[in-house]
Amino acid sequence: MSKVPTEARQFYDPHVFLCQNQRPADHPRGCCRDKGSQEMHAYMKSRAKELGIKNTRINQSGCLERCEMGPTMVVYPEGVWYTYRTKEDIEEILQSHMIGGKVVTRLQLENTDKFPKDREARLAASKTAAE
Amino acid sequence: MSKVPTEARQFYDPHVFLCQNQRPADHPRGCCRDKGSQEMHAYMKSRAKELGIKNTRINQSGCLERCEMGPTMVVYPEGVWYTYRTKEDIEEILQSHMIGGKVVTRLQLENTDKFPKDREARLAASKTAAE
Repeated sequence: MSKVPTEARQFYDPHVFLCQNQRPADHPRGCCRDKGSQEMHAYMKSRAKELGIKNTRINQSGCLERCEMGPTMVVYPEGVWYTYRTKEDIEEILQSHMIGGKVVTRLQLENTDKFPKDREARLAASKTAAE
Repeated sequence: MSKVPTEARQFYDPHVFLCQNQRPADHPRGCCRDKGSQEMHAYMKSRAKELGIKNTRINQSGCLERCEMGPTMVVYPEGVWYTYRTKEDIEEILQSHMIGGKVVTRLQLENTDKFPKDREARLAASKTAAE
């Protein structure tokens, strides 16, 4: 909807938001907090510093509303979304995306990925197409 | 630093983050929470819905680290930052930026605005230049 052009020089580039929403344990949608988002946020923040990545910020955010695909993060200004689980996933996002400028497709969420099954079907189809 | 191109179709467009960080009352930098960010977040979220703005999300975030200029928000993918105080400020950002596609310059934070005095000097200089 917005027609505002992207700022040539971003204040943070990239600016990363990791969902930290906590829901009751029996909530059917689940939540990122129950899937390790707090520990992974702390890890990503300290590891980005350790790697000397400048001009970035690894932020916590409220619910990003992609709970079923969680834990999720979004990287701006590019608007690339990821799901992640482990420190290795975080490391790959830091090294490939943030340092190397290359999207980590194995962790990327497409706009159409609403449930894990959507993503699995999409990845399986792209694997078949590549064979 | 990132060289990843911006996604042609963003999942949320625009995606707005309002800093909600709370610091101790005597902290020298102050914090957005003590300047009304919680009430303004709730207002902006419900007002965006009321105005029928589609495909957006008005998120809470952790500390955006521009405390002295707070309360602050950032609008992505464009990467435009604002300071705000009142419901009228929020309304103008919704109407002008999010519906009209026009940046609200009177509330915008430039990258060089670290303290309110930087912003005041900049606005005064641009006013003088326009006369």
